[in-house]
Amino acid sequence: MIDITGTYTDQYQLAMAQAYFLSGRGRESARFDYFFRKLPFGGGYAVFAGLEDLLTVLERLRFDEADLGFLREQGMDPAFVESLRGFAFRGRVLAVREGDLVFPTCPVVTVEASLIEAQIVETLLLNILNFQTLVATKASRMRLAAGNEATLVDFGLRRAPGLGGYAASRAAIVGGFDATSNVRAGRDYGIPVSGTMAHSFIQAHDQELAAFRAFAAAHPTNCVLLVDTYDTLHSGVPNAIRVGQEMRQRGQRLRGIRLDSGDLAYLSKQARNMLDAAGLTETKIAASNQLDEYVIRSLREQGAPIDLFGVGTSLATGQPDGALDGVYKLAEVEGRPCLKLSESTDKITVPCAKQVFRVLDETGGFWGADAIAMADETDVERMHHPSDPHQSLVLVGRPQEPLLHPVMAQGRRRHEPASLTEIKRYSQERLARLPAEYKRFEYPHLYKVGLSTRLDQERNRLIAAHRSEPSS
Amino acid sequence: MIDITGTYTDQYQLAMAQAYFLSGRGRESARFDYFFRKLPFGGGYAVFAGLEDLLTVLERLRFDEADLGFLREQGMDPAFVESLRGFAFRGRVLAVREGDLVFPTCPVVTVEASLIEAQIVETLLLNILNFQTLVATKASRMRLAAGNEATLVDFGLRRAPGLGGYAASRAAIVGGFDATSNVRAGRDYGIPVSGTMAHSFIQAHDQELAAFRAFAAAHPTNCVLLVDTYDTLHSGVPNAIRVGQEMRQRGQRLRGIRLDSGDLAYLSKQARNMLDAAGLTETKIAASNQLDEYVIRSLREQGAPIDLFGVGTSLATGQPDGALDGVYKLAEVEGRPCLKLSESTDKITVPCAKQVFRVLDETGGFWGADAIAMADETDVERMHHPSDPHQSLVLVGRPQEPLLHPVMAQGRRRHEPASLTEIKRYSQERLARLPAEYKRFEYPHLYKVGLSTRLDQERNRLIAAHRSEPSS
Repeated sequence: MIDITGTYTDQYQLAMAQAYFLSGRGRESARFDYFFRKLPFGGGYAVFAGLEDLLTVLERLRFDEADLGFLREQGMDPAFVESLRGFAFRGRVLAVREGDLVFPTCPVVTVEASLIEAQIVETLLLNILNFQTLVATKASRMRLAAGNEATLVDFGLRRAPGLGGYAASRAAIVGGFDATSNVRAGRDYGIPVSGTMAHSFIQAHDQELAAFRAFAAAHPTNCVLLVDTYDTLHSGVPNAIRVGQEMRQRGQRLRGIRLDSGDLAYLSKQARNMLDAAGLTETKIAASNQLDEYVIRSLREQGAPIDLFGVGTSLATGQPDGALDGVYKLAEVEGRPCLKLSESTDKITVPCAKQVFRVLDETGGFWGADAIAMADETDVERMHHPSDPHQSLVLVGRPQEPLLHPVMAQGRRRHEPASLTEIKRYSQERLARLPAEYKRFEYPHLYKVGLSTRLDQERNRLIAAHRSEPSS
Repeated sequence: MIDITGTYTDQYQLAMAQAYFLSGRGRESARFDYFFRKLPFGGGYAVFAGLEDLLTVLERLRFDEADLGFLREQGMDPAFVESLRGFAFRGRVLAVREGDLVFPTCPVVTVEASLIEAQIVETLLLNILNFQTLVATKASRMRLAAGNEATLVDFGLRRAPGLGGYAASRAAIVGGFDATSNVRAGRDYGIPVSGTMAHSFIQAHDQELAAFRAFAAAHPTNCVLLVDTYDTLHSGVPNAIRVGQEMRQRGQRLRGIRLDSGDLAYLSKQARNMLDAAGLTETKIAASNQLDEYVIRSLREQGAPIDLFGVGTSLATGQPDGALDGVYKLAEVEGRPCLKLSESTDKITVPCAKQVFRVLDETGGFWGADAIAMADETDVERMHHPSDPHQSLVLVGRPQEPLLHPVMAQGRRRHEPASLTEIKRYSQERLARLPAEYKRFEYPHLYKVGLSTRLDQERNRLIAAHRSEPSS
């Protein structure tokens, strides 16, 4: 599916690369950090997703003949275009483990590469990580709302943003979903696929009962019947029960029914009672229709006996945010620290090669702070607020773990790709270590992020130096 | 880029297809309509987009070996899976012309194919059309806000929903954009590409002036300088003017400057004055940073002298809606009309083979109504509200044009694909025919949609018949 070539980038990356090439600076080394500024959905954390896809793309990235021909036609410098024939990403990448929880300002991925390579890959990196992190975070919130017992299935492909639905199905799993309706994503990513029937199948038969029987005959081990086409409680559920009893006589089992409209709390309770009274206690109830974390929470609070939630639009589009504001900022060129000034201090970038330390409590849980340090620091004794010089926090003696690990060297992965199952498990494990106050939907506790004393001083020195130049 | 195979679908389509196959009904003919229920963005119209991409995918759609192997592994019926080896879409497609304005309830695309083919292509059809129509509509609103003189450029790839950014760049053009930063979309769709420079390029040089000079040297004919890295009016614009004057001495011309932060209205006016005073009257001003149709309208109302707007997130994600609610509903099986009931009358589907007539005024402008009729009707004398039996509208004597045209027969396109430029031009032409009241952002005039008398009667007959059955 993913056929990303060198031109999967913004034109200005190539314009800058051409300028570096022509001025002989293309091979200078650069360091860029990927981070975001605002947690999505008004929540207290984000789930980092997309890393393995990014590494796969970086390993394979080339300009093909169509790319080169197009760039020549665009009037780009012929020698520069020719140089792209040998392009490959040969850089080093450090990253937080995929599935981990991440917070604003902290570098999540660091790219060390030539100026040209680092610039050309910026757009695809942002494109992949911003969207998958957004969707994984949304999925994680739904998992929190649904509890660990319920099955969560991605139904989003039809309302997904075009081919973006493919990555959304993957990111949903990272965030805690169990399965997808998207068969192609299932095929390529090894995600369990799940699907029932549509209203059209019922309509295409003269009678609902005949439709149910035909479906049961074709799917004796995996029959889930959609019961709301005509009248859920007076037609759909009774017909499903009849088919369920016929299946039982054949030694089969009706796997489930699906509710797709109406008051899901009321209907699920009534349907559960009817199924149980008919002895179909093992038949599950699935629900879909404009679900999100708030609707799922409400259904659970009402005690709705729903075993499976199918979620579409709000998951696959990351609504209501629609985008994560992740950016990719220059931190060093040829070992010299770089800064981007801004009138608002909290938008000034953080220079230098860095490490991020997560502060732990005595039991290994997350204490509620990430400290950004110089790459050669081994722990942080005091961290400083990134924009308010009056705020700092003593961390002496608190256990800390580094979050940035080398994942790619000279353009090659350093480890076998992690499986999606492993990433999901890791993410759940990390989420379990975050105290509940950070996970609530309303006014979550603020996770603190700061700079080590050395990094803070170096940044302040650079800010002062820049501001003292008359016209830098 | 687009490598959509047969498994690019929801699992339940394959589950239903298997049931049709096993019951011997797979070759029965079906008719499905694609339509949506709610106009996006609280607007008065939508711009239909994605049709040419859909037809391309339908022509090529196959199950490859990986697909077939996966479906076997999933435990699907071996004979059914084997039958998919010969799968191709061999149906007929009628559609509104891409770029036309479309309204709720009216069929925009009709698919006539075997039950199995029609069901399998549902998901990809919705996936392609829902997203592109959403983005094209958003783009069209920005074009209305910006006026016809301004240049509109899609900068969305970095915040776009993964690979969905590719289609977003295309849909932006349909809706009235001029260019994209997305090089790959430019290459594949023939879209003009456009790009300037990033802050990182300035930071990678010791001085802003040196960065500007290096960029001008590499891009003598297409140099646009980003002026807000340090201080827009005290550093960026003066340095850009200096380089512009140096370029002029070399017989070159500074094409533009770009503002990416701060008060764009104020800064653009100051920058324009400074450029003009220095004789750089031909140098354009580009602006970017969280733009949408409302910000663009405000900038224009303030008289901001901005020549080019670069729009990212809100365009590529179709914010704030994030999705169009388009659906694909069964209208006929083997020539028998089909209905889906619902407790709310306005969600009951419209059965039968249909045509849509757009009512025109005397000058060829849009009068404000689309009438849905039986396929064999040639015009509509009176149209009836789809859910309120007390409302109807006399259309006798008003000019009407049919909107649904055959675009595919036996799985092959009936015409050469329309170019994106043609589609854009057509869309602009259609938009010009819609009265202004339907185009305003606040409380737009309601475009009326209704059913012809024959279709209304047939639908009411079917509703009554369904409701009289005890347990259908």
